[in-house]
Order: sequence, then structure tokens, then C-alpha cells
Amino acid sequence: MMNWDSLFATRMQQMKRSTVREILKLTARPEVISFAGGLPAPELFPIQRIREAADTVLAERGQEALQYSTTEGMPELRALIAKRLSAGKFQISPDNILITSGSQQAVDMIARILLDEGDRVMVENPTYVGMLTSWKPFHLRFSPVPTDDDGMCVDELEALLESGDPHKMMYAIPTFQNPQGTSLTLERREKLADILVRHNLPFVEDDPYGELRYSGEEMPTVLQLEAARRGSTTVDGSVMYCGTFSKILTPGLRIGWVAAALPVIDKLVQVKQATDLHTSTLNQFISYEMARDEDLLRDHVTVLRDVYRQRRDLMLKTMDEHFPSEVKWTRPEGGLFLMVTLPPHLDATDILQRAIKRDVAFVPGEGFYIGDGMGKNTFRLNFSNAREEMIVEGITRLGEVLKAALKAS
Amino acid sequence: MMNWDSLFATRMQQMKRSTVREILKLTARPEVISFAGGLPAPELFPIQRIREAADTVLAERGQEALQYSTTEGMPELRALIAKRLSAGKFQISPDNILITSGSQQAVDMIARILLDEGDRVMVENPTYVGMLTSWKPFHLRFSPVPTDDDGMCVDELEALLESGDPHKMMYAIPTFQNPQGTSLTLERREKLADILVRHNLPFVEDDPYGELRYSGEEMPTVLQLEAARRGSTTVDGSVMYCGTFSKILTPGLRIGWVAAALPVIDKLVQVKQATDLHTSTLNQFISYEMARDEDLLRDHVTVLRDVYRQRRDLMLKTMDEHFPSEVKWTRPEGGLFLMVTLPPHLDATDILQRAIKRDVAFVPGEGFYIGDGMGKNTFRLNFSNAREEMIVEGITRLGEVLKAALKAS
Repeated sequence: MMNWDSLFATRMQQMKRSTVREILKLTARPEVISFAGGLPAPELFPIQRIREAADTVLAERGQEALQYSTTEGMPELRALIAKRLSAGKFQISPDNILITSGSQQAVDMIARILLDEGDRVMVENPTYVGMLTSWKPFHLRFSPVPTDDDGMCVDELEALLESGDPHKMMYAIPTFQNPQGTSLTLERREKLADILVRHNLPFVEDDPYGELRYSGEEMPTVLQLEAARRGSTTVDGSVMYCGTFSKILTPGLRIGWVAAALPVIDKLVQVKQATDLHTSTLNQFISYEMARDEDLLRDHVTVLRDVYRQRRDLMLKTMDEHFPSEVKWTRPEGGLFLMVTLPPHLDATDILQRAIKRDVAFVPGEGFYIGDGMGKNTFRLNFSNAREEMIVEGITRLGEVLKAALKAS
Repeated sequence: MMNWDSLFATRMQQMKRSTVREILKLTARPEVISFAGGLPAPELFPIQRIREAADTVLAERGQEALQYSTTEGMPELRALIAKRLSAGKFQISPDNILITSGSQQAVDMIARILLDEGDRVMVENPTYVGMLTSWKPFHLRFSPVPTDDDGMCVDELEALLESGDPHKMMYAIPTFQNPQGTSLTLERREKLADILVRHNLPFVEDDPYGELRYSGEEMPTVLQLEAARRGSTTVDGSVMYCGTFSKILTPGLRIGWVAAALPVIDKLVQVKQATDLHTSTLNQFISYEMARDEDLLRDHVTVLRDVYRQRRDLMLKTMDEHFPSEVKWTRPEGGLFLMVTLPPHLDATDILQRAIKRDVAFVPGEGFYIGDGMGKNTFRLNFSNAREEMIVEGITRLGEVLKAALKAS
């Protein structure tokens, strides 16, 4: 008999199934109103245009679109992404772009090229659980950076950087963060860029939600500001920027990318080759066929913004009406999520058990936090995936669950 | 300024760009007759059927096919693959199947769940370079197993297993091996299965080419024989079987799979989640839509077999006519490759330089070998990707290059 448990690699001890994904399974019953996932609204997928794009690609370039291709990715798609990320004097070359199987793969591969056992890595607290799942097996030491309504408390970075061993890298979602929905202000972005330059600190700017802004001012990327701070007009600094079509087109194509300095791209290409040779040729061709129609993509993002704005507003309004006053939450200007903080004596996982009995689901916040016991009284709500009537019904029920729990406590 | 070289992880020192992929780039000029890649013939891709499948999937299940999905993979596709791998009493459950982004990803993820620094791993010598690229960064000790015309010399395994530290795992391509095209005989497969069971040795059976047989008898998989040897009728032993649609449908969809015992699948799912969340939903749906038409897939494989058989036969015949008698080569019963051995004083990389001047390309064998200097006098030829007239022309030129090199030496 095989005793597999004695055979698995040491790094697997650091790996647990993601709470988010496991909960998604639990709540697959159709009657559950789920605010748990991070899913875009499927009823808004541009299915008809994707059908046309797939058909055009297969009719016109079928042999190429179905064959093996280069690890770096489809040249036209790399050029298109480079152009979309460029702004004014800040110009990105296609050589700085690597196509990945979703931006999760970019985040995973960056760890593989840069992180050794014991490395210190700074992250926002709370942070993206998919990054933690990927990076924990590298046996790192995470330095949590506290956050407030304006994102990461950048003022605390310098003290952290100067204490103890040097940091190898930093990871953050500066815009509409997962799980909180909060964004770094322009002032903090500039301060962050300045710190990155002075410390030559590799920085992963994970930006899956940046284009989904519903209110407030557009913000430059940290990628851009870090270059500006050095007087550079291209990608040759410490920022590795991860983007994706998952939230603005569809996730099922799994098309993401990294924009980074050439030495980083060179190493990522080697890892990508070892990992899965290259990203699906067909899906790159389809994505290019869609995205090269600039009007189409812009109009589609406008539709997404309009619908998600309404859903966010409705969720916030319903929370204002039905959540007890002891409960607090973020008010994001974009993205897919907001985060709720309960009075410290309440446990969000207990609340989830009660909520599931009322056919409502969300993700407890604990898994997003570095530090034992932190975030136990928080949970994340997704507002992009539920239709209006479900938001009202689900949030109202959740308000009742919260009131009952507060009363009982 | 960023000094990236000082920042990359230690494991990156083990990683070099794959020779095969870099050479593919060098020979991208249209006038080059390339026997270098491992590409299937694009003119045989069932493009029209894939167009129809994509259209059906998007029309009927568009929202689902474009949304995030479970890490394990599309249930219907897992069931279909389980059924295709089952034979008689040997029955595989869909739970034993994980869908991956090509079988390269399966090979890469198996390393991530099982291998620690310093582990001893047995491999055929020569072996698949894509496995070496993926696994070398884990700082392993490879034990090379010699091969002959009947594949791996299984008789040498026991002695190797009993010498020195225990082995953690073994990797092989038992059927139409890359790079040699050779296959393990039934007798050797049974002996191998017996050894695996007696030593509880985890074994990766990489089988991308198994269905592409042009002559000789069908062989049972090692997966099957290992189960039979234990009196089991299902997947609960030490074999992790990696398969793919890349060679029998198209590579551009990047759909592969692992069949393995449940504890292995469980760990692979965790790694898959961290790596890229899940394989492209759309491509899984398209592959399922294609493969569930059993007649279509069987007829398509028959076409591939017929065309590739002709190409293999033509290549062998042209080699018989034009290669000097000092040169030897394998005569595969299937797959995409054969391997050439030159007299020991000739260097295949030198020959490649000469061949490229005559607009012919192949892959020098050295990169496939474990052991310094081994295989310097070998090279790999692919026969699936060149049309008949190109095979005659290319092999004839290569014969001239070889004769000139022998004369000059």
C-alpha cells in the first residue's frame, strides 16, 4: 500500500485548500444567494461577440490558432496590451509583456523566480488569499502592512523596511483591493513609488480590477509612478505589474499578463516554459480579436461599470438600512468587493453558519489576514455577481442574522 | 538601478532556456525544412469541427463556458477521460482525474507536490527535456536508466533502487518515447509494474503519444498493469498517468490531465488552485464537445495514424537511401520522433550548424541526456510536421551534410 502522506514534499505542509474555493462548493445549491465568490456577472459576458471572434479566428487563422506557439505569447496581443498600459510619455514595449494563464499564474510565477526559503515579503493586511495560497509553500516570512480606508498605510513602510533583515519583495493590490475594495490615494501611491525607488524594492502590483471604477478619480498605476520617479518613460524598474482580461472580458479564457523589466520577463519565460509551455493559443487569438476592437472593449467596460455601480450602490444602501449600527464596512470606488467588520466579540465563521441556514453566503475574512486570530470578526461581500433583487433579499436576510447574533451575544 | 541578477531565487540557477524552444525560433525562416519541433501537422487539425464545437458550446452554454470554474475541471470531461482510460475490469472514476493546462503542467505540478531538494529521481536516459526543465530547479539527484531499442533497460532498475539512498520517484514515457520514439515491450512493462509494486515507488507515466501507433501491437498502460499486479481494478497505486489532447486533437487548446490515486489528486488540486485557479473553461467545453463524439475522435486518430505512418515510413526509407552507413537510428512504431546516433567523434551541434546552412534543422540530443558529454553524437528528428516532399528533400540534404562531415573528419 502506498503511504502518500509520508511522500509529499515539505512545502505541501504549508498548503491548505483555499477557504474561498471550498465555500464556493458548499453554496452551489441554486437557492443560496452567494456574495462569496469573486465572479463577474455572467449575464454581461459578450457571448455573441466571442462567438463571432472565435469563428473569425478559426476561419482565418485556424492552423495557427490551434498549434503550439511561443512561450512569450501572441505578438499582436502583447503589442495591444503594451499599448493599453502606455500613457502619454510612458511607453511600454511588447517585449516587456508576457502572456499568462490568468493573472494568478503571473503571481505564482513571480514567486518561483524570486523567492527563496526564509525570504521576507511585505503584504497589505488583509491581502489576496490566492497569493497567500501560492506563496506560503515557499516558507516565507510575511511582514503585514496595516491598512485603512485609503489602502495600505504607506507611512509605516519605511520603518518596516529598516527593521531586521532586508525585505526581498512586496505585493499589493493598490486599486480596489481584494478583499477590502479600498484603493491607495494618489498621495500614497507617490510616496510608495518613492520608497520603492530609494530601496530598489521589487514590487508586485496586482491589478485585476483597475478598470472597474464606479466613482472618484482615475489613478495612475504604481508601475507608471515608479518610472516617473526615476525619470524613466518605460518599464525598467522594480515594479512587476499583473493584469487580466478576466474581469473586463471573461475569466473562462484565462488570459492574463505581466509587464516587467526585461531581465524579469526573461526569467518568467523560462518558468512559463517549464510550467505549461505557453498560454492557450486559441484563447490568445480570441482575446486579441475582441480587444483590438477598441470601441467594443471600451463600450463593454462602460456597461460593466454601470451595472456594477448600481449593484454596489444598492448593496451599500441596503446595508445602511438593514445592518445594525455596531457593524462597519468599506465603501469602495470600484472593483468587486467590500469588507465588513463586526464588533470584536463576533466570529464571522459562526455568522456564516447562521447565514447559510438562511441561504446566504459570504467569505469570512480570517483567511485574508496575516497573524493568528486577526480578522476573525470580518467578512467579504461580492456585489458584482448578484442581480439587484438578490442583493436586496440577501443583504436584508444578512442584516437579520447579524441583529440576531448581536442580540444573542 | 535594479540589480535583478542578485535578486533571483537560487533555483533559477538550475534553469536554462530549453534548447528545443530556442532552436524553434532560429529556424522560423519559411525556407527552413525543420525536423526540430514536436509539432503535430496543422493541416490535419479538425478546424471545421472545432468551429462547430466552439459555436455550439457558446450558443448553448456560453455563460458557463466563459465563467470561472472548479479547479478539478469540467465534470463531463473528467468522466469522459476516465472512461477512455478504463479497459475491461480496470475502471477509473472521474474523481481520479484532474484537468491540466496541457500535460506539461501535470508533470510540473507532480514535482511541486512530491519533490524536496536532494531527492533522488530515476529517469530514462535520454529523457523528455521539458521534464528536465521543470524538475531541475528542485535541485534533485537524477539516476539515469540506460535504454535500448526496447525502451528502458528494466533489468537495471532493481540494482539502482537498492544502491545508495532511496529513490523518491521515477519518470518515464513508456510508449513512443520523446526523444527516441522507442517503446517498452510488454515483458518489460510487466517487470516494471512488479518493481513499482514491490518498492511502492511513485511513477510518472507520461503518455502524450500512446494513441499514435502505426505498427506493432497495442500495449496496456503501466497504470493498468501496476493495478493488475496488485489485484486492483482501479487507480489506487503508485502510478501518476499524464495524458493530453495536444497530439490527437490540437495543442492550442492546452488540455491535458492526470489520472492518479485520490490523495495525489487532492494535493494536485491544491497546487493547481495556487498555480492558475483552473484550466480554461471554454477549452474544456470545446474539447468535451469534440471528444464526446466517439466516432469523430476515433476517425480523426485514424487519419493521423495513416498520415504519420506514411511520413515515418518515408523518412526511414529516405534515411536508408541517403544516410551514410556509419550512422544508426531508431525505428519507432508510433509517436512523432526518431533518434539518430552518429559515430562518437561527430558532434551533432556542429552538424546542426552545417545543416542550417542547407536550410534543414533538427534538435541535437545532448539536452535530453543526464550526464556530462553524453548524447553529443545524437540528434532527434520529428516526422509528423513535414509534408512528404519536404521529408525527401530535407533528409536527402541531411544525408549530404552527414557524408561531408564524415569525409572531413
